[in-house]
Amino acid sequence: MNIYSIAIMVRNEYGVLNRVTNMFRRRQFNITCLTVSETETEELSRITVQFEGENDRAREQLVAQLAKLPDVIEFREFNPDESISCELLLIKMANNDEQRRQMLDAADAFHAKIVDYTRDSIIFRIAGTSRRIDNFIDLMRDFEILEVCRTGIISLERGPQVMRTINTL
Amino acid sequence: MNIYSIAIMVRNEYGVLNRVTNMFRRRQFNITCLTVSETETEELSRITVQFEGENDRAREQLVAQLAKLPDVIEFREFNPDESISCELLLIKMANNDEQRRQMLDAADAFHAKIVDYTRDSIIFRIAGTSRRIDNFIDLMRDFEILEVCRTGIISLERGPQVMRTINTL
Repeated sequence: MNIYSIAIMVRNEYGVLNRVTNMFRRRQFNITCLTVSETETEELSRITVQFEGENDRAREQLVAQLAKLPDVIEFREFNPDESISCELLLIKMANNDEQRRQMLDAADAFHAKIVDYTRDSIIFRIAGTSRRIDNFIDLMRDFEILEVCRTGIISLERGPQVMRTINTL
Repeated sequence: MNIYSIAIMVRNEYGVLNRVTNMFRRRQFNITCLTVSETETEELSRITVQFEGENDRAREQLVAQLAKLPDVIEFREFNPDESISCELLLIKMANNDEQRRQMLDAADAFHAKIVDYTRDSIIFRIAGTSRRIDNFIDLMRDFEILEVCRTGIISLERGPQVMRTINTL
């Protein structure tokens, strides 16, 4: 199974996310994570999708179909070597006297930030690559994980090249 | 226009994201941002949606419809006072001698991390509340923004309460 990552710049219109995810569904690609959010230009949203698929040919067909959607302004496939990818994690841990010190030491080492602290729970926030986030969650399994929430990745190409926005069309 | 925020725990099945976003489209709610990502349980994904709508009655109907989807294990509406919300930003700036010092000082003050640096561009990464991210982008408008990519928010309730996962059903 291959993992692919693309960014899609779309017009902000009702149902656009639906039309985009529909393409993945119809081609039976499994979306591992997806983020969509507004951009510096009000008319546009940026969708980042990480997805799994069996073969490159199906992926090429998917990309060709996406390009034909009237909502899609531009899209870009990311090469891991030439791009920066990161995500954000919130993780809620049980807080108890036996494990607290060991847990806080591990969190410190990862520069995790405490964003909520109660008698019974601690929420840590940590940003980084997916691998770093995976490693941190793995470390936390030694203690009691209550809840995990991650954003899924966003990516930008290294260097000054940019995706087009409506202003440059 | 009101802003609502909910988390939806769904089974990892082909087309589930499509079925969920379809609900929003049919009720004409505009999704401001959405993240979907795997959880600590392989069978489940967690979707966080922030959306705008005119009235609470329509929102209640939407929530009732979501609850009826067979993919949906649980969902939760967030009250801003009782939850932690944050997002992640990657922002690519032009790098030039006239503005660099002033730009880096601003980034330092926001504890933004430099994740790529070339002769012509700098990519900053910053995590925080949506307001903090908005403020940072606003500050960067004094310089030359090349590209902006944000994850959209994720949220957890403060304190030890958790959303059910398949293990606790």
